Amino acid sequence: MAANTTTLKGQPLDRPALDALLRRRMFYTPGFEIYGGSAGLFDMGPPGVTLQDNIISLWKKHFINEEAMLEVDTTVLTPYDVLKASGHCDKFTDWMCKDPKNGELLRADHWVKDTLKARLNANKLARGETVTEEEDPKKKKKAGKVAAQKLSDDVVKEYEGILARLDNYTGAELGELIVKHDMKNPATGVIPGEPKQFNLMFQTQIGPNSANVGFLRPETAQGQFLNFSKLLEFNNNSMPFASACVGRSYRNEISPRGGLLRVREFLMAEIEHFVDPESGKKHARFAEVADTELVLLDRHTQQDGKTDVRKVKIGEAVSSGLVNNETLGYYLVRINKFMEKIGVDMSKLRFRQHMANEMAHYAADCWDCELLTSSGWVECVGCADRAAYDLEAHAKRTGSPLTVRERLETPIEEEKWEVEPNRKVFGPLFKKDAKTVENHLISLSQEELAALSKQLAEEKKIIITVPGLADASTIGAEALKIELKKNTIHTREYFPHVIEPSFGIGRIMYSLIEHSYWTRAADDGGDEARGVLSFPPIVAPTKVLVVPLSNNPDFKPLTDKICRKLTSQGIWVRTDISGATIGKRYSRNDELGTPLGITIDFQSTSDNTVTLRDRDSMTQVRGDEDAIIDAVRSLVTGQKTWADIEKELPKFDGQKA
Amino acid sequence: MAANTTTLKGQPLDRPALDALLRRRMFYTPGFEIYGGSAGLFDMGPPGVTLQDNIISLWKKHFINEEAMLEVDTTVLTPYDVLKASGHCDKFTDWMCKDPKNGELLRADHWVKDTLKARLNANKLARGETVTEEEDPKKKKKAGKVAAQKLSDDVVKEYEGILARLDNYTGAELGELIVKHDMKNPATGVIPGEPKQFNLMFQTQIGPNSANVGFLRPETAQGQFLNFSKLLEFNNNSMPFASACVGRSYRNEISPRGGLLRVREFLMAEIEHFVDPESGKKHARFAEVADTELVLLDRHTQQDGKTDVRKVKIGEAVSSGLVNNETLGYYLVRINKFMEKIGVDMSKLRFRQHMANEMAHYAADCWDCELLTSSGWVECVGCADRAAYDLEAHAKRTGSPLTVRERLETPIEEEKWEVEPNRKVFGPLFKKDAKTVENHLISLSQEELAALSKQLAEEKKIIITVPGLADASTIGAEALKIELKKNTIHTREYFPHVIEPSFGIGRIMYSLIEHSYWTRAADDGGDEARGVLSFPPIVAPTKVLVVPLSNNPDFKPLTDKICRKLTSQGIWVRTDISGATIGKRYSRNDELGTPLGITIDFQSTSDNTVTLRDRDSMTQVRGDEDAIIDAVRSLVTGQKTWADIEKELPKFDGQKA
Repeated sequence: MAANTTTLKGQPLDRPALDALLRRRMFYTPGFEIYGGSAGLFDMGPPGVTLQDNIISLWKKHFINEEAMLEVDTTVLTPYDVLKASGHCDKFTDWMCKDPKNGELLRADHWVKDTLKARLNANKLARGETVTEEEDPKKKKKAGKVAAQKLSDDVVKEYEGILARLDNYTGAELGELIVKHDMKNPATGVIPGEPKQFNLMFQTQIGPNSANVGFLRPETAQGQFLNFSKLLEFNNNSMPFASACVGRSYRNEISPRGGLLRVREFLMAEIEHFVDPESGKKHARFAEVADTELVLLDRHTQQDGKTDVRKVKIGEAVSSGLVNNETLGYYLVRINKFMEKIGVDMSKLRFRQHMANEMAHYAADCWDCELLTSSGWVECVGCADRAAYDLEAHAKRTGSPLTVRERLETPIEEEKWEVEPNRKVFGPLFKKDAKTVENHLISLSQEELAALSKQLAEEKKIIITVPGLADASTIGAEALKIELKKNTIHTREYFPHVIEPSFGIGRIMYSLIEHSYWTRAADDGGDEARGVLSFPPIVAPTKVLVVPLSNNPDFKPLTDKICRKLTSQGIWVRTDISGATIGKRYSRNDELGTPLGITIDFQSTSDNTVTLRDRDSMTQVRGDEDAIIDAVRSLVTGQKTWADIEKELPKFDGQKA
Repeated sequence: MAANTTTLKGQPLDRPALDALLRRRMFYTPGFEIYGGSAGLFDMGPPGVTLQDNIISLWKKHFINEEAMLEVDTTVLTPYDVLKASGHCDKFTDWMCKDPKNGELLRADHWVKDTLKARLNANKLARGETVTEEEDPKKKKKAGKVAAQKLSDDVVKEYEGILARLDNYTGAELGELIVKHDMKNPATGVIPGEPKQFNLMFQTQIGPNSANVGFLRPETAQGQFLNFSKLLEFNNNSMPFASACVGRSYRNEISPRGGLLRVREFLMAEIEHFVDPESGKKHARFAEVADTELVLLDRHTQQDGKTDVRKVKIGEAVSSGLVNNETLGYYLVRINKFMEKIGVDMSKLRFRQHMANEMAHYAADCWDCELLTSSGWVECVGCADRAAYDLEAHAKRTGSPLTVRERLETPIEEEKWEVEPNRKVFGPLFKKDAKTVENHLISLSQEELAALSKQLAEEKKIIITVPGLADASTIGAEALKIELKKNTIHTREYFPHVIEPSFGIGRIMYSLIEHSYWTRAADDGGDEARGVLSFPPIVAPTKVLVVPLSNNPDFKPLTDKICRKLTSQGIWVRTDISGATIGKRYSRNDELGTPLGITIDFQSTSDNTVTLRDRDSMTQVRGDEDAIIDAVRSLVTGQKTWADIEKELPKFDGQKA
């Protein structure tokens, strides 16, 4: 579990101070606040939106452009049938307990976690140990209000074991834990009821007919799978390839909290990389990354209730079987590189492997990229091997062949049971259901077809149950033939497997903000420590602040001119002509994470020189308008560093208000 | 009404050929097609997404950056109370008729439009006149199946008048028109039933409690209004300012059709420009644009049933009162400029003023930017003056002052009736409703408060009806004082008015595609005419196609090197290493709208020179790797034109497959 987190400069992180800064500068704000708020919904203000845009833009360049992926933009609204087939209607659920006394709805795994953490915390207090911020009971509204109370060492060990395996329990097991460990609701004094499944999808009605049930998508993945055949064709029928989609997804959380870390509406960026399963899931560019070291927390370490990480070269991790295949390994490296580019503190990053029960039954392997924040390790990217599960499910439901057909170099002779309906009889027999019945027959295994063929020959009819139809279907020999046919196979047909890196943009953004934050002692001893967000220029919401020394109208022409020149070069610039002191304005700007500041003073109006300030060092240089604009461009595009600029332009120590 | 539309080169537009191209190249595709589709939902494929991204990116630069707007990103999920206050729960509806025989649901205004157009068309056929594509009955599935039949001149005039005023009718009026003109449903032979209101919002439930009704937002505007006070503070309490939001909105259309032009889920880009109503809605930069000429179709012309446009300088349009104010006029010019930048055919653009009944009752003026397509004139941007309607509605409902407070230079003495509850009595009297009752009292007019004060003095109690509470509220004199107080007013407090330019990105994108489309005769006489999409480089989905002459492995190193160099400069590049002929690959690329192509041939492997091809002229130049990369960069950024490049680099007539 997380120790006390620190700022970029190693200071203890003062979370309330950071929260106040984010609110003051409108990075994000609770949605519908004047209406009393709506849990799990947040709006982003100006710096937040642009920070997000810059992260997305870099993401698209890093993944879609550099890896030649096929981007799609699919709809959020999704008809029932699609999510029934994908399993979400039945399985996209959380376990929810109802308090029998006050009717309060509680998420079962969170209830267990909060209760046990509060008890461990109370134990620490009782033993006079330090309580980490994450475990601070004041921050837990419900389960947390426990006074100092000692626990035996065995109990502590048991609780810690439960917490380490928390994602691993079924609903029934969570219910048993709640009863066994007497996890009463302090608000009512009773134990919450048995966990029940709550579907996390938002449901709605598409069109004026109430029978057309739809949902808001829980992930962008399904929209990509449904377009698989079109994308394959777009890619000139060439494999492997990856599609990608950036868009909102929805999750009707039972009781969201934790700011941007657990919300009901969120931005995802997902990649679906389609590979031939018989290729060993090799990746053409794996050799380029094989020597890259990643920080890994493997499944076995966690099963032992531990969280020790180790640095491993991805080439070794794949060849030892720790990471299942090259494609998965390649993406872990690309994810790592992306995090580095946007400015994540790489000492606060690890890849955690999913434990066996955490993964879907069909998944071969799954690794989460986690970032350390004041809320502990946060899952920011999931990178899973989904096998062929989704494509097969949709193909089965629709009869569309979501497969790859490849010409075989040597044709194969094959005998195969084939279904051949007699259209004239079969059609009228089943009317609108004819296609459903036929698709079902086609989907049967060779063994099943052989048995049916025998039955058809002996009894002159078969009786089958077709999913989706209420009654059993009786088919006579006059309507259907099932025969063993000899074919020469010229093509191989297969369902590709899918490697899926899935990014939660809001979580990445929040973690990045924490990693970029630090405070600077007030220079005159008067003010409080000042917050700084040291975003790299590439993601910083605004690149340059242009500040006239005062709102003297003489400063306006040069201010406007510099702004227009920068803007015309595509550089995001803002002016601050408020009456505040230069110091206050720079301080406001440091909080917004703007890396550079240009000041226009009285000297500027006579000799056209201005000063350029570096956010992180607070040092300034002076130069004429064009020299400074050149310096800005080279800093913003990453061609030069501040140290380079300091060598080229004279240092300036003048005006400081 | 639209004449036959033409391509960029003046050829008659073959819409089915264009549709086939867009489908083949996966610009967009019907959503959920393998599940039988879901009307009004479309997915975008690779070129569509990037075209959309480029339009949005230019939009943000043109509006948000150049005009220093405050961007927000708010949630789609919106609680019931917000949309009740904004009027959407009651008024965001279409009129829907039900066919009494087969239960079919029809949108009333569309029913009137389609039926009358079909009749006018049948009349033209009967008179041997040409039928424009838009009116082609084969394209209208339901109401359109009418044989040639003559109408009298009076009837033609009446029908044309109804069509010109179509947006102007109430539901009852539409019902009367349907009965009066005997608009039977050809499918059943009966007249559809009386129009009923159908709410167009998608409804859902937020959280596990079914009492928490929410909707998918119908516009991004409300999210901006709710953040008004925070944005004003972010803007250092300085007025005027504009906020902006790009995001999806939803409209549960009764029976969507028309491809991207009428969909249930769509991308909007909306600006809310907040101004002091007492400022005359002046705009600081209006003088810069006053001489710009716009193509206007005013309200009076339409009231006369006509559609004649005229070119007017915006300065004159505002001073004559045709356009209500400078801010509105300024935005019309900026919209015009934006359309020009992205490559819209400016001869197919007009600004149409809303007629009186088309506008909301509180709106001062409204103009739509319309683009001419094969579906007629399409509303792509609405630019309305919403007055203070929304801010007042939310302030009234929540008690939050969504106002601007300005320090007065000269204080004003004022007498005012004020409400003063006696907390100790008032609170217990109304319990949880106390705030609601108090807010209601505060919202009353001075006249109403004077009357209540008198009543309170005489009867020692008042009985009032508070919206939202079931029973009338009785308040005794012991719980409440209403007194005339003398105040010195140091600040002025006002609700700003809102000018709202609102962009439908999908409609703009579709219109732009039509405006950019043309066909080129096959050069060898064998193939069909080849489609070209002449997007300007700034919006083109891919800037450069890199094509090795064949898949000979000798070409690979240089192909990869050039791609990486271009990519590292942020230039969107693709390769095509399929086995197709160079001609086929260029043709595929012209359909994707890629402006430039680089070809690597045998000569390249010996002397490092490659050729560069211009999509529109099909001419080629040759140069070494770096010269060609420089040329690409200067063309893509708009610094040079193809004519410039042709002067600098030698023409190439060599390989042509």
